[in-house]
Amino acid sequence: MSKFIAEMLGTMILIILGDGVVANVVLNKTKAENSGWIVITTGWALAVAIPVFIFGNISGAHFNPAVTIGLAVIGKFPWNSVPIYVTAQLTGAFLGAVIVWIYYRPHFNVTENHDAKLSVFCTQPAIRDTFSNFISEFIGTFILVFSILGIGNTHMAEGLSPIVVGCIIWAIGLTLGGTTGYAINPVRDLGPRIAHYVLPIYKKGSSEWRYAWIPVIAPICGGIVGAALYKILF
Amino acid sequence: MSKFIAEMLGTMILIILGDGVVANVVLNKTKAENSGWIVITTGWALAVAIPVFIFGNISGAHFNPAVTIGLAVIGKFPWNSVPIYVTAQLTGAFLGAVIVWIYYRPHFNVTENHDAKLSVFCTQPAIRDTFSNFISEFIGTFILVFSILGIGNTHMAEGLSPIVVGCIIWAIGLTLGGTTGYAINPVRDLGPRIAHYVLPIYKKGSSEWRYAWIPVIAPICGGIVGAALYKILF
Amino acid sequence: MSKFIAEMLGTMILIILGDGVVANVVLNKTKAENSGWIVITTGWALAVAIPVFIFGNISGAHFNPAVTIGLAVIGKFPWNSVPIYVTAQLTGAFLGAVIVWIYYRPHFNVTENHDAKLSVFCTQPAIRDTFSNFISEFIGTFILVFSILGIGNTHMAEGLSPIVVGCIIWAIGLTLGGTTGYAINPVRDLGPRIAHYVLPIYKKGSSEWRYAWIPVIAPICGGIVGAALYKILF
Amino acid sequence: MSKFIAEMLGTMILIILGDGVVANVVLNKTKAENSGWIVITTGWALAVAIPVFIFGNISGAHFNPAVTIGLAVIGKFPWNSVPIYVTAQLTGAFLGAVIVWIYYRPHFNVTENHDAKLSVFCTQPAIRDTFSNFISEFIGTFILVFSILGIGNTHMAEGLSPIVVGCIIWAIGLTLGGTTGYAINPVRDLGPRIAHYVLPIYKKGSSEWRYAWIPVIAPICGGIVGAALYKILF
Repeated sequence: MSKFIAEMLGTMILIILGDGVVANVVLNKTKAENSGWIVITTGWALAVAIPVFIFGNISGAHFNPAVTIGLAVIGKFPWNSVPIYVTAQLTGAFLGAVIVWIYYRPHFNVTENHDAKLSVFCTQPAIRDTFSNFISEFIGTFILVFSILGIGNTHMAEGLSPIVVGCIIWAIGLTLGGTTGYAINPVRDLGPRIAHYVLPIYKKGSSEWRYAWIPVIAPICGGIVGAALYKILF
Repeated sequence: MSKFIAEMLGTMILIILGDGVVANVVLNKTKAENSGWIVITTGWALAVAIPVFIFGNISGAHFNPAVTIGLAVIGKFPWNSVPIYVTAQLTGAFLGAVIVWIYYRPHFNVTENHDAKLSVFCTQPAIRDTFSNFISEFIGTFILVFSILGIGNTHMAEGLSPIVVGCIIWAIGLTLGGTTGYAINPVRDLGPRIAHYVLPIYKKGSSEWRYAWIPVIAPICGGIVGAALYKILF
Repeated sequence: MSKFIAEMLGTMILIILGDGVVANVVLNKTKAENSGWIVITTGWALAVAIPVFIFGNISGAHFNPAVTIGLAVIGKFPWNSVPIYVTAQLTGAFLGAVIVWIYYRPHFNVTENHDAKLSVFCTQPAIRDTFSNFISEFIGTFILVFSILGIGNTHMAEGLSPIVVGCIIWAIGLTLGGTTGYAINPVRDLGPRIAHYVLPIYKKGSSEWRYAWIPVIAPICGGIVGAALYKILF
Repeated sequence: MSKFIAEMLGTMILIILGDGVVANVVLNKTKAENSGWIVITTGWALAVAIPVFIFGNISGAHFNPAVTIGLAVIGKFPWNSVPIYVTAQLTGAFLGAVIVWIYYRPHFNVTENHDAKLSVFCTQPAIRDTFSNFISEFIGTFILVFSILGIGNTHMAEGLSPIVVGCIIWAIGLTLGGTTGYAINPVRDLGPRIAHYVLPIYKKGSSEWRYAWIPVIAPICGGIVGAALYKILF
């Protein structure tokens, strides 16, 4: 399998499971309706950990341009592979969101709330405040990339490291996720937002493009700074 | 111990714990009444992981015809052992459901809701829609079988792989389980449904046989496609 | 450290944490008041796993006469050490309950409900039914002892097995715990019940001695049958 | 990286995540508002585990003067390094709290409740009772330090021990945390309390300095006794 396929399929599974857990909790009449933040955050943690298990050996399992670019900045990933990785990630994220829409269609059809339907696809801030929203996504991704690099310094029994990566996602969601919904990954937000824009979703509202730049730019900045600090310190 | 006994006992324990957690949450007057989706999904994840620990070395711990048939299709399991495995799995699932009924009998006797009592045994869709329900069970089992095979490519410290299998079940339940209740296993649904049909359960309602084919056929299809895609890609 | 000390201290810590989580959830005005079954069951799982980590190398970390006697029946533990182990376990359980009472005293003093205060110490059935209550404790302990022995057949990376033991407790609590409150351990129930009987707890009610025999006898029977079945099968 | 930097950054990340989860749950209008004790305790467990992974190899990952002093008392850490470690920890804790305030500022600005805002930073007892509050922090830290030392006696697969440390924090929070909010670490309480005192937080109330000595003194006492008992027994 090529690295392109691995990044694309891995990101697709990540979004099927990750956007899936949001659909499960926020759409009407699912068995998990309103089951709360512990379900959302545990679901997202596993949504990342499982494709890391499957594809880690093949592509390194970035699934996130903030990781890919952060690694490139510190010389741990070749710059000329960045475009292909990011393309694969964005494609996978878009396809994953399409599958979630197909999967949960009857529940989209009984959900009137526009915000709930959009939130299945992409993030929206709890309180709109450009500076604070940027800071949220910046710090969240800073911690993500710094921690992923940091745990690489510990020798780990084989198979443990995807679990620890899942724990990092779990931690960020539980502790820092409630302000902007922790995109901490440009394609995790942009790919599904494009899907929301193009799909014929039942009575959908705005795709909120005016917010879309924050979960793209802030995670890239946070990832670069996290990687750079790691390189300086270790 | 023979593989038949291992598959039968393993599936029996899986159903005791798995149907047990549903009983614990949906029946009246239990200490866990209405404790929610996190309890249901964590319970099912462990319901699978624990018999995988106990019986994995003996039979491979399928406990699921969608896994058994999927492996057979790609040449990783002998076709002539499929009938004996599936028979063991179905028998174990039926016996497990009988034990859950005996275990929770006082609570069945104070629960009037027909749907609640049926849901202890087998799955029902949140919204009845043949196409979508089929898709749900198909995609859920596709991810299950593809992921189980996929994690087999990672070297893992001894004893970690049953935990990761449990995490896959946890993930599917949390993120995709709320539409049809994630049977993702023909015998997990059919064995307990037969038990519901034959047992003298207090004021029971219909066993909903008209829905019964979906959680049997869709998981088998999803398992075959998941295994085939794995074989093509890896 | 002697095995007696290890079993006593280990069971004491088990009860401090285990009875502690019940106090945290059921007593009035704690920060975890009414935080539900997921808190109770996760707390108990860790309450067992942590002393298993600490004392496993020294005494084998039984902390439970149903385990000790079950092992003795199948020749994996010397009968002449059974009395000393059980004495240590009962002493530790009693002391642990005393510490929980001291720890949570201000909260006992603002809790009027007799049942809530008793439930911190020992188990009570959700529905009183001698046959069913016995079956609950029997099956729960059967699965506990059979599973603990069963996972011993898997080679595990060092340090993983206490985590798996914790997962077994987690599973039993989540899936089967809601009928009788899963004592599945004679001293876990009897030691704290004695403490409830002798301590000057604020406005305490009955210690419900008429029920006390079930969480003592049924777990021992379940443990013996679980160990015997393991020996027959493996 | 020096040990000073490791202890400072590690404690800073610990507080960003740990105080972060409290902010996420108690401040108004976050996506995790009122998501309960399971979110708080899981968040704090990971808040400790993740910096232990990153910095364990460098400084030993104390992040807690009760651990540092406890180890010094039993000769496992040089006394002349204690001041530098504690200074690093306190600095990191203060900085972490400042970052949490910046991160959650829009939510502080819509939260009127003084207690909620203070509880993001530092602990307050559920019921004010000097003796009982002291006992709570003493016993909690006793178990923390005794358990951390105790698990050091088990051989563990590489990378597992930070997870087990996280489980100890999880256990203490779930089972004993509801009385005083489990500071169990002098700087975890004092650093953020100083931040609360000096920061221009929107309509803040008292920093409750009269309580501040308990989560400083009691954890140190508990850590010393826990370490001493470990040394006597093992």
